[in-house]
Amino acid sequence: MSDVAALEDRLLAGDRRALARLLTLVEDGAVDVQREVVARLHPRAGRARLIGITGSPGVGKSSVSSALVATLRTRGRQVAVLAVDPSSPLTGGALLGDRIRMQAHHGDEGVFVRSMAARGHLGGLAAAVPAAALVLDAAGFDDVVLETVGVGQSEVDVAAMADTTLVVLAPGLGDGVQAAKAGILEVADVLVVNKADLPGAGRLESELRGMLELGHAVAIMPDVTWMPPILRTVAVRGEGMDVLCDAIGAHGAAHADAGGERRARARARRWIVELAAGRVRDVLTAPGGALDDRLEVLTGEVVARSLDPASAAERLIEGLR
Amino acid sequence: MSDVAALEDRLLAGDRRALARLLTLVEDGAVDVQREVVARLHPRAGRARLIGITGSPGVGKSSVSSALVATLRTRGRQVAVLAVDPSSPLTGGALLGDRIRMQAHHGDEGVFVRSMAARGHLGGLAAAVPAAALVLDAAGFDDVVLETVGVGQSEVDVAAMADTTLVVLAPGLGDGVQAAKAGILEVADVLVVNKADLPGAGRLESELRGMLELGHAVAIMPDVTWMPPILRTVAVRGEGMDVLCDAIGAHGAAHADAGGERRARARARRWIVELAAGRVRDVLTAPGGALDDRLEVLTGEVVARSLDPASAAERLIEGLR
Repeated sequence: MSDVAALEDRLLAGDRRALARLLTLVEDGAVDVQREVVARLHPRAGRARLIGITGSPGVGKSSVSSALVATLRTRGRQVAVLAVDPSSPLTGGALLGDRIRMQAHHGDEGVFVRSMAARGHLGGLAAAVPAAALVLDAAGFDDVVLETVGVGQSEVDVAAMADTTLVVLAPGLGDGVQAAKAGILEVADVLVVNKADLPGAGRLESELRGMLELGHAVAIMPDVTWMPPILRTVAVRGEGMDVLCDAIGAHGAAHADAGGERRARARARRWIVELAAGRVRDVLTAPGGALDDRLEVLTGEVVARSLDPASAAERLIEGLR
Repeated sequence: MSDVAALEDRLLAGDRRALARLLTLVEDGAVDVQREVVARLHPRAGRARLIGITGSPGVGKSSVSSALVATLRTRGRQVAVLAVDPSSPLTGGALLGDRIRMQAHHGDEGVFVRSMAARGHLGGLAAAVPAAALVLDAAGFDDVVLETVGVGQSEVDVAAMADTTLVVLAPGLGDGVQAAKAGILEVADVLVVNKADLPGAGRLESELRGMLELGHAVAIMPDVTWMPPILRTVAVRGEGMDVLCDAIGAHGAAHADAGGERRARARARRWIVELAAGRVRDVLTAPGGALDDRLEVLTGEVVARSLDPASAAERLIEGLR
């Protein structure tokens, strides 16, 4: 029995150490091991609800995440949090460790928190995050909260993965910052105006409503059947969290049929392509592999400017065939 | 003659509108067009010095960039700035436009500024930024400053591309934030303590010196022949910029031989692999392409959980062969 098979048995029996080990394997392990984990656990998963949380720095994403977890717990749900930090590319590992802010849930067996950092090459998280979510799903959590810690492309990736995506905003952060992030409205299923006790919350809500209505009118928003609600929260005091939980449920119910199926297909398709692209990249760059000598020669020609990089890439791919 | 060939002629004749158009083509255009631009201009480039600037939000990266440009201009150098913003994935385009902060250089024909945003899929910038730098190099700029506007994986990418990478820090931003970013020390050729007139600059410098010495001692830093200098600047007043320019020159001189060659090879290799991976991804996902039907079928099987994503990816790749 492979190591992964043994870990799978322990995972399904509720062993938290096996869970942590499997997450480390999909984050750090050899690509082949990641693939084995995905292949084994995929049939065991598919039950969890994936809730994405994104937004600019300073809006209180982590407070919203923590308060949401507390409220989901009062409803009897087992909750895992995957905090994705794309801004720590080289140091690796989960810099924020077990997340001090999650100490509120310390000792609660129904909550599991894990941070994941990027791994220095583009595409690392694109493969590792879906695999980690799969592990948490197979472990039996009812909800998996995917939270972006930093800013960046991960926002889109998280939204592409989640069943329901919350975009968190807050008043008083400056129009410039928020306008620059306006693109994330396109991925919002629920808009959260956090820190709603601060001045400007009403104005922010009005602006968002205007942008949403415009977005629907010109059909830039992908889902014409769902108008994202705009909810006010003060997450550090737990205010507005019940309404937020209800809105997540309502979005899920509204998408139980065709919309949910479309999303699941888009997600599966994206994941297959990422895994395939990663596999090809492995083949292209494997040290000592069949293409390694070819890549070395091509690199030398590009440095000498006797060959351009685009043509070198074509010749490298020919070696695949 | 193709459009790109005509633009190439105008670019080499110093036409700034052709320059802007070529940059748009590598950022927005079809992948084939991007490849044609790279193939045509690569033999024309190789003269420019690529200076990377990275650091956490709030340290004054853009002030350092602007002041550096001003000082390089006093030394008679033609300077292009490429401001890379990975945090604007969906809205696209250069949100910050022509960068208000660069108005100081307005009307100076020896300065060219361009912003690039991410394009919603991982890997978009990894291919577009080297191509844009190539266009600016071919256009005849002496220096191309690559500045990251946001935070994220682009830090590593910028460092991987640059001849000399500046990591900017500032006192008073909280140890947590800076410690979390400590990984970027590994990519620093020159450390810049900006806002050095603020309290804590001395302490920050001491901490950095300790980290650098430790890094050298345990050999996590890739370049054992170069100890990054730590320089103090007050960029908004232009203070320290001459010393900074000298340090960039010294680093370049120290790497004119073996170190520079190693870097050039690593850069070329990385770029070839990115272009090859992008090309494969195109083939895998081309609508109506040979693999499109296969991908649709595989996606359906994964959604139905009769097949796992890793196995689906393997089957998709088989279609390449």
